[in-house]
Amino acid sequence: MRATLRLGLLGFGTVGKALVRLVEAESPRLSRQLGVDLRFVAVASRALPRKPTDGLPPDARVTEDLLSVATASDVDVVVELLGGLDPAGPLVVAALGAGKGVVTANKALLAARGTELARIARDQGAALSFEAAVAGGIPILRAIRESFAGDRIDTVSGILNGTCNFVLTGMARTEGGYGGVLAEAQALGYAEADPAADVEGTDAACKLALLARLAFGQEVPLEAVRTEGITRLQPVDFVYAGMLGRTPRQLGIARRLADGRLLLSVRTHLVSNDSMLASVEGPFNAVQVSTARGGDFVFSGRGAGGEPTATAVLADIVEIARRDGGSGVPPFGTEAPAPFAPAGPADSVAPFYLRFVVRDRPGILAELASVLARHDVNVDAVFQAPWSGKSALPFVVTLEPVDEERLGRALVELAALPFHVEAPLALPMTP
Amino acid sequence: MRATLRLGLLGFGTVGKALVRLVEAESPRLSRQLGVDLRFVAVASRALPRKPTDGLPPDARVTEDLLSVATASDVDVVVELLGGLDPAGPLVVAALGAGKGVVTANKALLAARGTELARIARDQGAALSFEAAVAGGIPILRAIRESFAGDRIDTVSGILNGTCNFVLTGMARTEGGYGGVLAEAQALGYAEADPAADVEGTDAACKLALLARLAFGQEVPLEAVRTEGITRLQPVDFVYAGMLGRTPRQLGIARRLADGRLLLSVRTHLVSNDSMLASVEGPFNAVQVSTARGGDFVFSGRGAGGEPTATAVLADIVEIARRDGGSGVPPFGTEAPAPFAPAGPADSVAPFYLRFVVRDRPGILAELASVLARHDVNVDAVFQAPWSGKSALPFVVTLEPVDEERLGRALVELAALPFHVEAPLALPMTP
Repeated sequence: MRATLRLGLLGFGTVGKALVRLVEAESPRLSRQLGVDLRFVAVASRALPRKPTDGLPPDARVTEDLLSVATASDVDVVVELLGGLDPAGPLVVAALGAGKGVVTANKALLAARGTELARIARDQGAALSFEAAVAGGIPILRAIRESFAGDRIDTVSGILNGTCNFVLTGMARTEGGYGGVLAEAQALGYAEADPAADVEGTDAACKLALLARLAFGQEVPLEAVRTEGITRLQPVDFVYAGMLGRTPRQLGIARRLADGRLLLSVRTHLVSNDSMLASVEGPFNAVQVSTARGGDFVFSGRGAGGEPTATAVLADIVEIARRDGGSGVPPFGTEAPAPFAPAGPADSVAPFYLRFVVRDRPGILAELASVLARHDVNVDAVFQAPWSGKSALPFVVTLEPVDEERLGRALVELAALPFHVEAPLALPMTP
Repeated sequence: MRATLRLGLLGFGTVGKALVRLVEAESPRLSRQLGVDLRFVAVASRALPRKPTDGLPPDARVTEDLLSVATASDVDVVVELLGGLDPAGPLVVAALGAGKGVVTANKALLAARGTELARIARDQGAALSFEAAVAGGIPILRAIRESFAGDRIDTVSGILNGTCNFVLTGMARTEGGYGGVLAEAQALGYAEADPAADVEGTDAACKLALLARLAFGQEVPLEAVRTEGITRLQPVDFVYAGMLGRTPRQLGIARRLADGRLLLSVRTHLVSNDSMLASVEGPFNAVQVSTARGGDFVFSGRGAGGEPTATAVLADIVEIARRDGGSGVPPFGTEAPAPFAPAGPADSVAPFYLRFVVRDRPGILAELASVLARHDVNVDAVFQAPWSGKSALPFVVTLEPVDEERLGRALVELAALPFHVEAPLALPMTP
């Protein structure tokens, strides 16, 4: 089998440049070992390099007209690396509409319009691949779509955002504050100048929605993911977590209940120090898949960066070449996704960590405890580390497993008490 | 797309029974979500159940004539779960020769005759799939064959045998002896009555040879894997490993040198307690893939057992159904494997742990040290834990990184010294 694929590239940023370098470097091997010949025929970018020779593929035409490349008659596969909803969305629609295969790393677009794009791809008999959209180089989407096709997935969870993991493991290592570690992440290129999508959880929520669609075959909307950022974590939380034999990790979790409803969240959990997730450090990602028959699987690796993302894009391109265009497997694993069936906070039960920062005065613990008792929430233990601060006293109450509807009602009442210096922080504790 | 696949099953042991149950349970979902209809039309086994209804698929014919099922005109895909070289080998050849797809979990057969079988499959345009042969339910072969096609793999390594991992983590946990923990593994079904293939490393060596073929595109012979068992580990080794912040793990490692030659081994390493491999406990497997561009990836999960293996077999069957018979991707990832280029012990450099058990008398350390010095082997540290035994004294010497050719010469001379109660044990130490 020998396949030649003509590529049109939309976007020429970090990943685009890494992809061009990668294809150039690997072409001889791909041709010899796999019988796949790849050639960039066109590159479109709204911000072309000043020197047109800077890393551009040698024989490709270069243009600022994105649509002309998305629909060019000499392009077989369009590689969309622009990101965002617009103009990426209309361009992908145009490319699929013209019968071209599309490879994209655009998680925001797929989370917002994935089902629609998959339908267009199917109607046109065109491939739509997006392994790079979730967890960078970790081949988790292919694993879920194909390798677990014979099992029933109960939970997909994991560390889906390398920036957050870098910040949290940095805070754990250095006992530094959030701002300082974030600045370090920015200096190293692990966080963007505007880190909001990362640290507030939106990026991970997009990825979780895609994972959940693939794993459970439902039309999971992005809005269904309960999303909390990591911005409220303080050095003192790492001290208390350590006392509990735990460490904070931002986890996305999508769980199917026995009745088929889905529970989806992105937030900071305290994970056990001897869990595999605790050993995932720095900008790495890890995805755990729990299945009914095969048990638990963990996949870890670099979740972002130009090169890991480019290798995932290239693997998708190679697959399209090998499959001769049509992949046979629908992009989200199923031809007919079921409607979304959401679960609610009452379905989520976990032990919790509550951190309070209060103006010290007698009777505070009694007041907090009586609110918790009134809501039938059982306290497991109270922790107060030695503390030099005078005006604000942080301390921690751990709870026995409690459903989040009840906990939520208790937290509203707790937060209304008059002695808080800041709002209470509630983090679930995960094995 | 709707595909119906008629299955012929060879072998009706633990995995075969789990597969029949699994197909029965998952059929409605596979049909609805993936458009794949599976049906067992024939089951062949040399030891049929006494009661023919015991777990057999309802409408299948049942026979002891294996060849008749392997070549039956109403069978599309033959599932070979007999294990071993004979009669599995001739049966798989016959099935492929008759143009049938073959799904097998038979690592021994693939390690011995994989290249030949892949060639027959290609010539016949038939699928040959064997995800279940390595690391049970972990979809590592598909990941290497497809997801890393765009990257260059430098090393594939991991915990490939659940029995060994169960025994080693059991010894670490209980400080018990090898025999007792092995008996526990047998009672729990994690080790066979004859555990030789597991504990002596042959099973892991077969898997490593398959991984190396896929990762490096070379014709790796099983004999090229340097193989040592776990049978010589003693409780005292776990004590010393703990002093070094390490724990023993049986690892298979296949590494490509810069010049393309391959270094392959299965043996016990002392891994760092904070490595991800150290967090892999009990009967779990983990495979690490180190790539030139994407960095390091780890995949972990259940490596054996009826259900995880059956789910991997079913995923292969579903893939064949979805791809309409031919997968387009050659079984070993490349159409033209290169000849095997072996590296030698001089190419393998690592820090080492040497454990001696000697009759205590003055001057022993000086004699050992002088042999090491004569061979230019640098001692890093000497450890001697408090020890109550009188006649036999165990102690440990750790070495700075040393190439194994030189170390091997030194070990021959060390072993010839007259004071050993048993032969020295040498274990590499791995980050």
